[in-house]
Amino acid sequence: MTAASAASWPILNAVPPNDETLTTVHDWWRTANYLSVGQIYLLDNPLLRRPLTRDDIKPRLLGHWGTTPGLNLLWAHLNRVIVERDLNSIYICGPGHGGPGMVASAYLDGTYSELYSDIDHSEEGLRRLFRQFSFPGGIPSHAAPETPGSIHEGGELGYSLSHAYGAAFDNPDLLVAAVVGDGESETGPLATAWHSNKFVDPLRDGVVLPILHLNGYKIANPTVLARIPESELLELMRGYGHTPYLVSGGFDGEDPMLVHRRLAETMDAALDHIGRIKASAADGSLVGRPAWPMIILRTPKGWTCPAVIDGHPAENNWRSHQVPLANARDTEEHTRLLEEWLQSYRPDELFDEAGAVVASTRALAPQGDRRMSANPVANGGVLRVPLRLPDFRKYAVDVPRPGETVDSATGILGTWLRDVVRDNPQNFRIFGPDETASNRLQAVYEVTDKQWNAEFLPIDADNHLARAGRVMEMLSEHQCQGWLEGYLLTGRHGLLNSYEAFIHIVDSMFNQHAKWITSSKDIAWRRPISSLNYLLSSHVWRQDHNGFSHQDPGFIDHVVNKKADVIRVYLPFDANTLLSTYDHCLRTVDYVNVVVAGKQPQPNWLTMDQAIEHCTRGLGILNWAGTEVAGEQPDAVLAAAGDVPTLEMLAAASILRVRVPGLRLRVVNVVDLMRLQSEREHPHGLSDHEFDADFTVDKPIVFAYHGYPWLIHRLTYKRHGHDNLHVRGYKEEGTTTTPFDMVMLNDLDRYKLVIDVLDRVPGLAEREGALRQEMQDARVRARAYTREHGEDIPEVAEWSWSGGGAGSGFEATGDDNA
Amino acid sequence: MTAASAASWPILNAVPPNDETLTTVHDWWRTANYLSVGQIYLLDNPLLRRPLTRDDIKPRLLGHWGTTPGLNLLWAHLNRVIVERDLNSIYICGPGHGGPGMVASAYLDGTYSELYSDIDHSEEGLRRLFRQFSFPGGIPSHAAPETPGSIHEGGELGYSLSHAYGAAFDNPDLLVAAVVGDGESETGPLATAWHSNKFVDPLRDGVVLPILHLNGYKIANPTVLARIPESELLELMRGYGHTPYLVSGGFDGEDPMLVHRRLAETMDAALDHIGRIKASAADGSLVGRPAWPMIILRTPKGWTCPAVIDGHPAENNWRSHQVPLANARDTEEHTRLLEEWLQSYRPDELFDEAGAVVASTRALAPQGDRRMSANPVANGGVLRVPLRLPDFRKYAVDVPRPGETVDSATGILGTWLRDVVRDNPQNFRIFGPDETASNRLQAVYEVTDKQWNAEFLPIDADNHLARAGRVMEMLSEHQCQGWLEGYLLTGRHGLLNSYEAFIHIVDSMFNQHAKWITSSKDIAWRRPISSLNYLLSSHVWRQDHNGFSHQDPGFIDHVVNKKADVIRVYLPFDANTLLSTYDHCLRTVDYVNVVVAGKQPQPNWLTMDQAIEHCTRGLGILNWAGTEVAGEQPDAVLAAAGDVPTLEMLAAASILRVRVPGLRLRVVNVVDLMRLQSEREHPHGLSDHEFDADFTVDKPIVFAYHGYPWLIHRLTYKRHGHDNLHVRGYKEEGTTTTPFDMVMLNDLDRYKLVIDVLDRVPGLAEREGALRQEMQDARVRARAYTREHGEDIPEVAEWSWSGGGAGSGFEATGDDNA
Repeated sequence: MTAASAASWPILNAVPPNDETLTTVHDWWRTANYLSVGQIYLLDNPLLRRPLTRDDIKPRLLGHWGTTPGLNLLWAHLNRVIVERDLNSIYICGPGHGGPGMVASAYLDGTYSELYSDIDHSEEGLRRLFRQFSFPGGIPSHAAPETPGSIHEGGELGYSLSHAYGAAFDNPDLLVAAVVGDGESETGPLATAWHSNKFVDPLRDGVVLPILHLNGYKIANPTVLARIPESELLELMRGYGHTPYLVSGGFDGEDPMLVHRRLAETMDAALDHIGRIKASAADGSLVGRPAWPMIILRTPKGWTCPAVIDGHPAENNWRSHQVPLANARDTEEHTRLLEEWLQSYRPDELFDEAGAVVASTRALAPQGDRRMSANPVANGGVLRVPLRLPDFRKYAVDVPRPGETVDSATGILGTWLRDVVRDNPQNFRIFGPDETASNRLQAVYEVTDKQWNAEFLPIDADNHLARAGRVMEMLSEHQCQGWLEGYLLTGRHGLLNSYEAFIHIVDSMFNQHAKWITSSKDIAWRRPISSLNYLLSSHVWRQDHNGFSHQDPGFIDHVVNKKADVIRVYLPFDANTLLSTYDHCLRTVDYVNVVVAGKQPQPNWLTMDQAIEHCTRGLGILNWAGTEVAGEQPDAVLAAAGDVPTLEMLAAASILRVRVPGLRLRVVNVVDLMRLQSEREHPHGLSDHEFDADFTVDKPIVFAYHGYPWLIHRLTYKRHGHDNLHVRGYKEEGTTTTPFDMVMLNDLDRYKLVIDVLDRVPGLAEREGALRQEMQDARVRARAYTREHGEDIPEVAEWSWSGGGAGSGFEATGDDNA
Repeated sequence: MTAASAASWPILNAVPPNDETLTTVHDWWRTANYLSVGQIYLLDNPLLRRPLTRDDIKPRLLGHWGTTPGLNLLWAHLNRVIVERDLNSIYICGPGHGGPGMVASAYLDGTYSELYSDIDHSEEGLRRLFRQFSFPGGIPSHAAPETPGSIHEGGELGYSLSHAYGAAFDNPDLLVAAVVGDGESETGPLATAWHSNKFVDPLRDGVVLPILHLNGYKIANPTVLARIPESELLELMRGYGHTPYLVSGGFDGEDPMLVHRRLAETMDAALDHIGRIKASAADGSLVGRPAWPMIILRTPKGWTCPAVIDGHPAENNWRSHQVPLANARDTEEHTRLLEEWLQSYRPDELFDEAGAVVASTRALAPQGDRRMSANPVANGGVLRVPLRLPDFRKYAVDVPRPGETVDSATGILGTWLRDVVRDNPQNFRIFGPDETASNRLQAVYEVTDKQWNAEFLPIDADNHLARAGRVMEMLSEHQCQGWLEGYLLTGRHGLLNSYEAFIHIVDSMFNQHAKWITSSKDIAWRRPISSLNYLLSSHVWRQDHNGFSHQDPGFIDHVVNKKADVIRVYLPFDANTLLSTYDHCLRTVDYVNVVVAGKQPQPNWLTMDQAIEHCTRGLGILNWAGTEVAGEQPDAVLAAAGDVPTLEMLAAASILRVRVPGLRLRVVNVVDLMRLQSEREHPHGLSDHEFDADFTVDKPIVFAYHGYPWLIHRLTYKRHGHDNLHVRGYKEEGTTTTPFDMVMLNDLDRYKLVIDVLDRVPGLAEREGALRQEMQDARVRARAYTREHGEDIPEVAEWSWSGGGAGSGFEATGDDNA
């Protein structure tokens, strides 16, 4: 790899490009600009071969011009250096609003017509290209899955650099040109993403070339970075660890050819600099972290649009952010102004008779997969290779009887993940905000390290830090998510582990990614990518120590609002079910898999064979815990989803088994939460018939749920038995206390569940009044003990659970109620 | 103000403090450290007046030591300068894990005992202080609402600087000492928060002194900023626009007295620098944006804890992050080590015979409200003055008949907000991520500007940018939310306007703030603060132009997971209902008010009198739109919540009125969403009796809802009529298209609603088969028209709606179905 890698990064010490080359660059830029303006405005008359009329203009003018000329400029110049240096490159469009530019570039290099054959290089193709943009049934106004060469949705701002670095990891020959908008730069995620350079390995990873595009304005304001002194901006970039290269031009009518020359020289210098870093990494002479180049490009917002519209400045002003001539269709004056603007690019020179872009311009494009629109890296599914997964059964914990052994579920998962890492050394990474060990996955450090390229100290030897490693830890959920998304979108695999409460930090990023997947499924040429896998540990029931601020199980609620065909939620309840679940997740594509699992030692309930059967169905009756009689309906159903709720539910079942021997109780556990929904609403949904068979249609169901209880109602409100359903879960009652006190505060504890059953089976509460009182007393006693001693009363402490036995029931050791 | 302000910021050109003073500082620090360790470990024996035994140690050791000695060090030194300079100062504890330090400091300066009388300065008081920490029924381990002097929850990291600047706005005499953790520094929100210095007015706002505390490690890793060269770190801070002052010490056993001297000199220099800036702002000689001082303090993590535990380094290592001696109770060796650690602070010197901290140490504290724990700014409710609100009725739009006039609801609100700004020039601000004008609140610029302190250009005259202004715009929802929280927590008022989809960016910040309010309500000395008001415009139904990535109405779902007593959600459906709603919101305290309202011109439905009556009840029957007969049950109920759904619902009602004259239809609108919940679950909840009266118990209800439809099921699943409820809403079907196509894609359009009613009233679909078919045909035709013409078919375009009339029904102009 080392030799190949060095060959990929030539140092040309290039002489500046000659005028002819720069003229071709300029022609490309003019054409791309014309194509962009055409997309925003034109329904018809794409070559302006007749005078522009009102009817040629779209009735609704949507899209964003402001950032587009800068994006087009960079694409043109990148084409030149890709060809000259035979670079393997993709383009990240941080100002996602620049959709017209991305599409124009893909059209220019021919990719667009290859993927969308009706949009060919002819006048009719051009007409269709223009018409479809921001048009009902057409394409979005932002860079989107529909856009060839894009892995970066132009929706929410702030993730361009994280996506870029995610793409670069393990792609040592890749150059990711990441255009960062100056509006985008104000977002938090982008502001910290610059530090990604401390997490990239110059030898084994590719190169991100950030290009900060300062065009001065956002929607209605100047941008911060455009309004600080240049010296300060350069210090900021050097402070972030980069070597800034500054190019400025195009203001006050400056000849674009002068800008082309400056930008070309700057790009050559930056790429030579990169080549030198790569060479020194390859020959081992690189010491410490290199100050990778980045480019600051300062050009006018909306460059080349009319300077003044209706007496207000348009070019180099926030007014060109969206559609500078918003009334192009409404007044003759504006229609003429639009025509002049379009003609300023001299379309007669740009297109041949048939309406195809002239060959000399198209010749600037690289060939085949070297085209940034066609690079398979940006359509990661075509490069994706399934993981080599070790047989998870071999990592099973021994479960002689339910509850007899105790393990940390995530700790066991860690042993399997260790070998996943070992067997997939170049296409699998684990991401987390400084919590991988806290979440008990530390077994992975037996075979890998945390990748780190900031300063090292001797003491780091015991820190598992190394220049190269499969674990990526930065204290920013945004970075972890963004890196992982970039990694997946370019064809690789991974997972993000995080505390459950704080995964809300990336709620909005999840939205964007889920929408990306949903849209991608409708695009034939996009191939499926690996699912985005979450492992949420340190969950709500085990944040007794960190307290109220750390308690929130609502990410599940957030996730299930998205399209059912991209969403999966799993709540494995012991080590073996977690192993089985995660093996499944790492095999899937085009989903978001949310897995919530505890890290604290908990009883193991199912053998591996049972776990596989249970997880394959997604839910099931735990016969060994129930007391129903074959062939008869039970009196009540006790159900649970989640590890802690299942523990409490089983403890309640145990108490009822011993204390109310006549009660026919069914015990159900749900691992795959989406099974609860109707098959009409989710692909995993049970049919009503199956649901009724498990939950009955008329018996009381007491359901102990991991999260906010109303979600269970939401998922089941159309079920026959819904009116008999009583759900316990987290209801925002929490503080710094003990684990059992947490479940008591939220009425999810075993005693309360026993009371719930007693209260719901007709006549039972009266008949078992003594037991009911005993349960209430037990709660009061447990509460008081905890407040006095600062720990759980021994009789209910989960870690004292033991015993049990398939088919014979089990008891809580020392539980004086049983 | 100017003179007073200058007087508050003395320039001492101070001689370094003498040894005696520094010894007192050191004594405070030792005491605070002792008190911190005591809180983490001790159940009893607080003064170590007998040998430490296992039973003196808490059974569960929770809390975080690592950051605490640094926090205590800074508090001690700030005490000195506050007294010397008579500063008005509060302390923001970015590393929220430093709860023990914050509590120790508040105990030392006497505030704690004043607020919690059982925690007095005696041996028993000390015992209680120690015991309560991280103990069931006690206080959280993080800085929390329970912590005097804190406005910053120690939950999620990243918001210290935003909160600090929020506190500083309009508090010209305030110094906010903001301690930023180096782990926290890696988060996105913090990384961009440094740029807040471009939004502060040196004359009218207070001063934030950021203190970056580099202790080198987070949970299990080094921190990025601690592992870059010092030159790079200084460039980064200068690049952020600050003047960095660097202090380092305490490593390799360095005498703390040397560190005290260096830190004291540095603080004096920084404060003199601040004084000079403030003086130049006051006398008008300040040009441009000052490079405000910030301090970088580099000290060992866990400073003063045992250097080595079990053969591993503890001090100056990530292992001291939480509880360095995790087994203090389990082995005799660790118990002895803990005792030695505690004795290293020489408690016999720190406390008097009675167990009170010696007077000489306590004398370091400022007096009264100057104490950072007691500063009323950090208990903003005590300073809060209600807004002077202009009579919103005077801003009412004229509504001669329902739907006859058309306005932008948020545009009208803007005229009222303009006068709210005018009448409350020092305690009300509007925050937004570059969208205040886009959300149509631009009328406020008639009386104020956007506050900005980066560079100005001549062209900014037409940009509403000024050194001082009431509108705060930065393209970071995190900053806007953080600033607003800080502003509210210190006793002021404000609102945050944002696009609906991207408010998810602050989901997690909302969680923390809602939890803060919930906890605060239980703390007697915390006074209520102004509610956090959202105005979500550019909502899901009007993101037809930006497309799928911009469409998400799920913030409401996220919000309603929090405690009912702090959550309010409003969906006003025209200009007058929005005015009435917002007037209410700006009067409330201790809530989060979420208001979703469109910015596009929409029909006005209610007169102001009707709007007030409707909003006061929160929902109501629109008699003028229905066809029911007094005293009889209707055949069906058509209900809606949200402006676009209400428009479609009313259009459907209109069609049914004309086309099915015999149908007795009730029309209901819901503005206050929480009215749908049971009164047992939300304070605004309707009683079942009231709900039944509006919605019936057995008639079909077709409900057109603004957001994800299942939320309505969730809110109403216990209602009698629930099984008859059929909800339409956003179901993640969207793209770049037209407004009416958006509602059609999601089956929320008028035609579909008509079909829904026909299908649900027994026998009606059969009887009205022709109408049903006509509705289906209308959908097909509208769809086709849109795809051909790129705009809505004129007959349903909302802006062509007109006519109507109270009591006489209304029609859609040009609607050929009617």
